[in-house]
Amino acid sequence: MKNVRILLVLALGFAFLSSQANLRSVLSQSSATPAANLDGFTSEGSAMERRWEEDFRGVPAPDSAREHLRRLTAEPHVAGTKEDYATAVYVRDQIRGYGIPSELKEYEVLLPYPKQPSVVELIAPRRERLTVRETAIPEDPSSSNPKIIPLFNGYSPSGDVTAPLVYVNYGLPPDYEALKKLGIDVKGKIAIARYGNSFRGVKAKVAEDNGAVGLIIYSDPADDGYMQGDVYPKGPWRPASSAQRGSVQFLFQAPGDPLTPGKPAIPGVPRLKMEEVTGLPRIPVQPISYGDARQLLEPLRGPVRPKGFQGGLPFAYHVGGTDYVRVHLKTQMDYQVRKIWDVISRIDGDEEKDRWVIMGNHRDAWTFGAVDPNSGTTAMLEAARAFGSLLKKGWKPRRTIVLCSWDGEEYGLLGSTEWAEENADELKEKAVAYLNVDVAVSGPNFGASSVPSMWRLIRAATRDVKDPKTSLTVYQQWQERAREQQPDPELTNAEAGSDTRTAEARIEALGSGSDFTPFLQHLGIPASDMGFGGDYGVYHSAYDSFYWMSHFGDPTFAYHVTAARLWGTIAMRLADAAGLPLDYRDYAAQVRDFFNESMKTARRRNLAGAFDEKAMTEAMQHFADEAERVEKARQDTVAEIERTRVEASDRQPLAVARLRRINDALLAVERAFTDERGLRGRTWYTHEIYAPGTYTGYAAQPLPDFRQALDDRNTSNARDALARIVEAINRGTVVLRKARD
Amino acid sequence: MKNVRILLVLALGFAFLSSQANLRSVLSQSSATPAANLDGFTSEGSAMERRWEEDFRGVPAPDSAREHLRRLTAEPHVAGTKEDYATAVYVRDQIRGYGIPSELKEYEVLLPYPKQPSVVELIAPRRERLTVRETAIPEDPSSSNPKIIPLFNGYSPSGDVTAPLVYVNYGLPPDYEALKKLGIDVKGKIAIARYGNSFRGVKAKVAEDNGAVGLIIYSDPADDGYMQGDVYPKGPWRPASSAQRGSVQFLFQAPGDPLTPGKPAIPGVPRLKMEEVTGLPRIPVQPISYGDARQLLEPLRGPVRPKGFQGGLPFAYHVGGTDYVRVHLKTQMDYQVRKIWDVISRIDGDEEKDRWVIMGNHRDAWTFGAVDPNSGTTAMLEAARAFGSLLKKGWKPRRTIVLCSWDGEEYGLLGSTEWAEENADELKEKAVAYLNVDVAVSGPNFGASSVPSMWRLIRAATRDVKDPKTSLTVYQQWQERAREQQPDPELTNAEAGSDTRTAEARIEALGSGSDFTPFLQHLGIPASDMGFGGDYGVYHSAYDSFYWMSHFGDPTFAYHVTAARLWGTIAMRLADAAGLPLDYRDYAAQVRDFFNESMKTARRRNLAGAFDEKAMTEAMQHFADEAERVEKARQDTVAEIERTRVEASDRQPLAVARLRRINDALLAVERAFTDERGLRGRTWYTHEIYAPGTYTGYAAQPLPDFRQALDDRNTSNARDALARIVEAINRGTVVLRKARD
Repeated sequence: MKNVRILLVLALGFAFLSSQANLRSVLSQSSATPAANLDGFTSEGSAMERRWEEDFRGVPAPDSAREHLRRLTAEPHVAGTKEDYATAVYVRDQIRGYGIPSELKEYEVLLPYPKQPSVVELIAPRRERLTVRETAIPEDPSSSNPKIIPLFNGYSPSGDVTAPLVYVNYGLPPDYEALKKLGIDVKGKIAIARYGNSFRGVKAKVAEDNGAVGLIIYSDPADDGYMQGDVYPKGPWRPASSAQRGSVQFLFQAPGDPLTPGKPAIPGVPRLKMEEVTGLPRIPVQPISYGDARQLLEPLRGPVRPKGFQGGLPFAYHVGGTDYVRVHLKTQMDYQVRKIWDVISRIDGDEEKDRWVIMGNHRDAWTFGAVDPNSGTTAMLEAARAFGSLLKKGWKPRRTIVLCSWDGEEYGLLGSTEWAEENADELKEKAVAYLNVDVAVSGPNFGASSVPSMWRLIRAATRDVKDPKTSLTVYQQWQERAREQQPDPELTNAEAGSDTRTAEARIEALGSGSDFTPFLQHLGIPASDMGFGGDYGVYHSAYDSFYWMSHFGDPTFAYHVTAARLWGTIAMRLADAAGLPLDYRDYAAQVRDFFNESMKTARRRNLAGAFDEKAMTEAMQHFADEAERVEKARQDTVAEIERTRVEASDRQPLAVARLRRINDALLAVERAFTDERGLRGRTWYTHEIYAPGTYTGYAAQPLPDFRQALDDRNTSNARDALARIVEAINRGTVVLRKARD
Repeated sequence: MKNVRILLVLALGFAFLSSQANLRSVLSQSSATPAANLDGFTSEGSAMERRWEEDFRGVPAPDSAREHLRRLTAEPHVAGTKEDYATAVYVRDQIRGYGIPSELKEYEVLLPYPKQPSVVELIAPRRERLTVRETAIPEDPSSSNPKIIPLFNGYSPSGDVTAPLVYVNYGLPPDYEALKKLGIDVKGKIAIARYGNSFRGVKAKVAEDNGAVGLIIYSDPADDGYMQGDVYPKGPWRPASSAQRGSVQFLFQAPGDPLTPGKPAIPGVPRLKMEEVTGLPRIPVQPISYGDARQLLEPLRGPVRPKGFQGGLPFAYHVGGTDYVRVHLKTQMDYQVRKIWDVISRIDGDEEKDRWVIMGNHRDAWTFGAVDPNSGTTAMLEAARAFGSLLKKGWKPRRTIVLCSWDGEEYGLLGSTEWAEENADELKEKAVAYLNVDVAVSGPNFGASSVPSMWRLIRAATRDVKDPKTSLTVYQQWQERAREQQPDPELTNAEAGSDTRTAEARIEALGSGSDFTPFLQHLGIPASDMGFGGDYGVYHSAYDSFYWMSHFGDPTFAYHVTAARLWGTIAMRLADAAGLPLDYRDYAAQVRDFFNESMKTARRRNLAGAFDEKAMTEAMQHFADEAERVEKARQDTVAEIERTRVEASDRQPLAVARLRRINDALLAVERAFTDERGLRGRTWYTHEIYAPGTYTGYAAQPLPDFRQALDDRNTSNARDALARIVEAINRGTVVLRKARD
């Protein structure tokens, strides 16, 4: 479900949070020569790893990628359907065919399907029933497939309401504030919001909180339509009849099966009754196209829109809220407990079988899912094929690699959350890292999010993979694009010493909206997410199809291949390195940046002084010092293993044991950042540094409870939240100390 | 011609240039109590002045304002027409009726009218002749007036070209660079640009420089149409058939009659031949509406627009440049030397007849000119009526007040420039300040530009005039709005100590686009420009009418009255104050800010060190010191006059003489900032601190030649330019020193 996220992070403008720490990381690496050892490897290990990796990267190929995607996108495969099951079987059988053990894992979860297409009807000023249907496009054969699910929002309740309509812009709290200033009350009315700037479940929650009786969400052409470029099938952007499906679960409170919060949805686990369920909207929510939205928005009266409300339809938007425009909205959902199927495949580690490097991607799609998520599934299958090829040649990964094909992600990260909940204890003990790929390819532009400990690992891997369109590496193409997109310093009035632009492409913070969430934010497992983005205007529509991909997203399938190479390279390094390439110096710097940013807000709001800034400063300093020491110890120990091996010294076992201790500490630090008590009002989320924002959903809100308390101007909460963060960091420091001796 | 300017300054984002100095000025005033003496007045003088001002402000009235505007806008009155002459006679006769001597002043200038409506025709992919006409609107009776001049651009040549069409966005140099990157060459093609971000003559010059054979300029609905709000007659914004007339003279090189550059267009002055004329475009230029533009833009092929090129029409813009879309453009102009008529009215000063406070507003309009410029003419007439009333009661201004109703402003500031050129020597000797009002009212939001020496004067006057819509003063309403419009510090990552927002509404720098230009930038006379702005989408269209004003701009005419009060109050203070309220401390601070900003650019471009920064720093310091001393001397001397008058001391004449010397210095400083040699490549402009930008036209480019040299990365020019600026500032310092003893 992910693509909107990256755009979002940029749009919200708080990406700067990570800039300083990211930059430090980049600069400290810039002198690295390609001939140097891979991080965490001895010379010998590094040379061997490089050979295996080259073999690995030689395997993925455009033709087989294309064939996987063709097979995966042959039919719509919404979670829980028999077509979804068929894709699970396809993935399992392919991976088994590569010589890797693979099994289906079934969960039984609450899944609504629309009983009938929803009704959206203009009642006044004239009576007109909207189409609420994506038209078949002759060029795209699958667009006329009768199994395409009607337009609906996952976890919308059934409902039947008729009320005046209010245009609420993006449907976020500041929008409702702007409406209040105009004297517009949303209570008892149907809200119409445009997609963008948040996860859609946030819009549902905020509409409900403001008393709306229903919510219509549409894709505005300014954000996702002709204002972005030519529309499908002429171009890659959303055409007038297309709408965005998607879940409106309150993901920022908890993902997973709504009937088994915090527990796996397996037989024997007690289910909540429907009336006990929380975290789902109680008002009907329905997506429509901008073609349909125009019929509702154009007749609206009331004040002309406040600043920032105007979209791309060719008239002045009004906010409505009067009786002049009345709308009928009817949604009819069939809520059932249904089966979904993860596919779990495993390559056992040779030396450290109880250490798992997990690769994950979801497989279920709202329609054909060519981009979201099966470009990722394709990359996983090609990576698996390459692993299979290596295994046949004698490669034995030091650690276990687990490949997970998740189901039910679109409804609310169901497959990954249930699996993580079922295997929580084992994962806490064994997981090294979770490497997510949701959309692998919607275009040629690399982007990544991760915990800071993985920044160097990811950057290093991108230096060893070629960008297929240019003669550059993925790293170079990524950096070049970041430089192009930097704001002109002349316009931003930045003080700088020269024209040289030094900032680098950032690796963003992880929020939510894809399957990394249960691993990082519930269990405390280092996680990453990445993919290649581009002009992608068919998100969650009937046109996210093989035709779209082969004409716009990746006609040569070269980026599918590149994604497989990069993903696998990172997994192999984590699986094979003697000393785990997780670097907490970057984490320390990043947390300091997060805190400094939060303190700016605190000072602006005169809240500074209400909490123990000094304890935090000290905690961060201790953590940073310890991270520095552990990193040195890790490098020294790898060097010592190399030396003692060459010397055939009997001191080697000691060094190996020491490195194991260091590795165990490195993977446990992230766990230490979680607090069993959970975050305020959303205890499923336990990570004290990273959580999705309550009002973003996709984008991260770093130091979440502290930041929220500052936003709420609640000094008592801020004090408590900061104290917990300090505890978490101190726990991390204690864990790092264990690596010492 | 002015309204776009204020929007522009904000849009271009360099308004920050003046912020620091502005802020200092505000803060230093904030402790002033209303009971204090008016600046430059003794207690007695201040009390008397306050009484006269209150009388003055009591005179202007909505009903007579409405009647003036009704009379002035009865017919279209383009410069040089008999309807224009009739407005001159109306103004003269009204002012004479108030008891103030008033005369017409005739000039003979080059004025083109369209011989026929221009032809804009799509030749391929289909043949279609565009309307190029503003439709009559039943609600607005004057919109069907047959005398409305066809859509054309003043000083476009006649031309007849057929060529492929290229969309060039705003038509500025970075736009052509973006096109070059896409491989699009404009040479031999017709460019279509949207209005905005610069004076339109800049677009013509840049199109010509890039080899275009013709230029079409249209108003995009994103900038000036439905995306701003409801369109006329439902709302105040530009409807689909409406286009913006306007001059394409190269105003940034020189304004005024093209046949008599630098000289008055009066009998006996030799005229250039047409082929000797420079500063006018050589390619045909034509404005069209967005209704028409859609016909041209929608079929365009070629690449999808680069970033920033998309406008508000409901499709993805392409840049064109291929043979697929070909356009025929034909303009037929009737170039003649024609008569225009300024109206010059004069209230002689009682004590200092040879010191002139000049109020100016133009009277000619592209159509009815209800907003631009006759809201200003109305304010002037109401101010004149109030002066007349005061004169009858015995008021005798210390200095002379000259009221100027300019003609031919729309074509290129013709009436004001010719008058300033004719009276240059006398003006240099006698002018205290030039107070321009072009658009007095298009809405309720006050805005001003001026030289920094007048900032305090203007702010003080706004504190003494009520805002008619609120219970606030104009000053308060202005500041409140500025605070509302400030960017959210959370989004701009500004470091600040609290939520209190301290920055104040700025008085902007003077660029060009209205009649202050010959006074400030050619002669070096302190100048200001101001008015009340709002949602104004009928600029230079057939709908800038009495109906528009009485339904949208100022239905009660209360802001016309307010403009008259404010303008007159400022003029009276300048005319009556014993010590001229011009403060060069603010000027010194502003120049320092300008220089600091320029140095940032210089450092970014590694140009610092190539010129004598130290000489500039010293010059600014000396000027600042002297400004401080003179200000103190001025205040001391006014106080001494008060004391000696009370004591009936024979030292009074000495103090009076000293004050006269100080006043003479204060008005001469601005003159000292001009350099007879003129600016590089545009010698008509002589002011070393303020000029319109070569690529903005409306907006100011402070320290113009230095800044331009930095933009061109020309260190030799930068050195020369800075040396001249240093000389200018040093001349200013010498002038201030003359006030000493």
